[in-house]
Amino acid sequence: MAANQPLLENLSLNQITTDQWSLKEAVAGCVKADIPWISLWRHKIAEIGLSESKRVIQDSGLKLSSLCRGGMFPAETAALRQKALDDNRRAIEEAAELGTDVLVLVCGPGPDKDIDTARKWVEEGIEQLVPFAESHGVKLGIEPLHPMYAADRSVVVTLDQANTMAEKYRADQVGVVVDVFHVWWDPDLYNQIARAEGRILGFHVSDWSVPITDTFKARHMMGDGVIEIRRMRQAVEKAGYHGPIEVEIMNQAIWDQPGDETLKIIKERYLEHV
Amino acid sequence: MAANQPLLENLSLNQITTDQWSLKEAVAGCVKADIPWISLWRHKIAEIGLSESKRVIQDSGLKLSSLCRGGMFPAETAALRQKALDDNRRAIEEAAELGTDVLVLVCGPGPDKDIDTARKWVEEGIEQLVPFAESHGVKLGIEPLHPMYAADRSVVVTLDQANTMAEKYRADQVGVVVDVFHVWWDPDLYNQIARAEGRILGFHVSDWSVPITDTFKARHMMGDGVIEIRRMRQAVEKAGYHGPIEVEIMNQAIWDQPGDETLKIIKERYLEHV
Repeated sequence: MAANQPLLENLSLNQITTDQWSLKEAVAGCVKADIPWISLWRHKIAEIGLSESKRVIQDSGLKLSSLCRGGMFPAETAALRQKALDDNRRAIEEAAELGTDVLVLVCGPGPDKDIDTARKWVEEGIEQLVPFAESHGVKLGIEPLHPMYAADRSVVVTLDQANTMAEKYRADQVGVVVDVFHVWWDPDLYNQIARAEGRILGFHVSDWSVPITDTFKARHMMGDGVIEIRRMRQAVEKAGYHGPIEVEIMNQAIWDQPGDETLKIIKERYLEHV
Repeated sequence: MAANQPLLENLSLNQITTDQWSLKEAVAGCVKADIPWISLWRHKIAEIGLSESKRVIQDSGLKLSSLCRGGMFPAETAALRQKALDDNRRAIEEAAELGTDVLVLVCGPGPDKDIDTARKWVEEGIEQLVPFAESHGVKLGIEPLHPMYAADRSVVVTLDQANTMAEKYRADQVGVVVDVFHVWWDPDLYNQIARAEGRILGFHVSDWSVPITDTFKARHMMGDGVIEIRRMRQAVEKAGYHGPIEVEIMNQAIWDQPGDETLKIIKERYLEHV
């Protein structure tokens, strides 16, 4: 039977949750708060460079749960799609260098109305990346995004779709990332979590609350919304996932409060609601 | 083969698109613009009363494509759920009195985090209404809403889910309403439209454009967004639907312009994009 509370040893700070912090500040914050995992975003790594980022992580003793993010495959021209692939290869190299085996894929929107073709480009992009990722010891984690982002962030919008795409490969090559914010509404959710057994590469938590006035910054702290987070955590555990649980929240009010305060609340809410 | 352009004789103004207009003004606007169908909202009917609304419609010669809306089944207590059913029965009576055989159901959000139970209450609510609706010659049209509304407007969020619910009944009792804004993102969309053959009770058009700053007023004029509207119209026709096509747009900028101008643009965009 799934445990009632999640393990604190699985708690990970997805760095976007403390976007007001630099990479060094976020790492120091996690060390101070006894949060053992962190997930880094590439634009934060770019601010201080890859080797300095690696040094900071290694010195801290923190473990890296994933790198955010690869993807963004569809584009109007073959040249632009090639450029996206090149950038994905750099992301894979960065993940390997930093010491995580999971690259999260936010697959990207289409450049026009033709959503079927955009989805085909996503599949083709992943197909191109798999050998390169494998040779670097990095798994590709397809993250279905909420359908609200289908026009501006991802044409991959359901766990069913992500599972189907991932199942073309071995489980140690391509898997799925389950983010409660993106999938909570899905009538087929628990079937799809069970179907993903052995392929779940990440579990992300936040909460959904209305009204929404900014779709990107729409996420809330666990417990402040309607998502059955604990039920989903127990379902991914039943499907064999016992890895890090990333707290990933884009929220202006949370970015405006001191990061240490955010981390304190995260730990409380994690134990209470995840 | 599906026609390239839709028939003007199928064009319907969903009244919310000209929310700045009263019922009388909307009816007069349609007559003036040669739009043969209209869909009324109950709060607009309430402003002048049912019998006056009926007289206005009959005098105009317009046909009523549907009544918006029934639904909103889930509620915290049995008494509140009963109250919702009573209101749905009034909506059915109004639809019959006004002369439309379609009541659109916006099924409602859950009162708490338990989305499974909320969905069960929707099913129970429809089960209760079917005999009453049938005795009034009114069909119940389950409209799946975009998953972005799962917390505040409808726990029914996919055409798959709506089809499954509708298939418990005869096609002349319960069907589905396909609104392009709500379903365009769905990877399984065209399978589900085909599955709905013989059960499609309405087809609604608007468009999706980003960014979204108000989820309720997020719809755009056909052609101003990313939805493959024509493809969907041809798919519902292939599935046997040749009834009215409602233009349903909640958009502040459109509400702020003269209604006659809106109707003029609707006709142009309908022929070009639907």
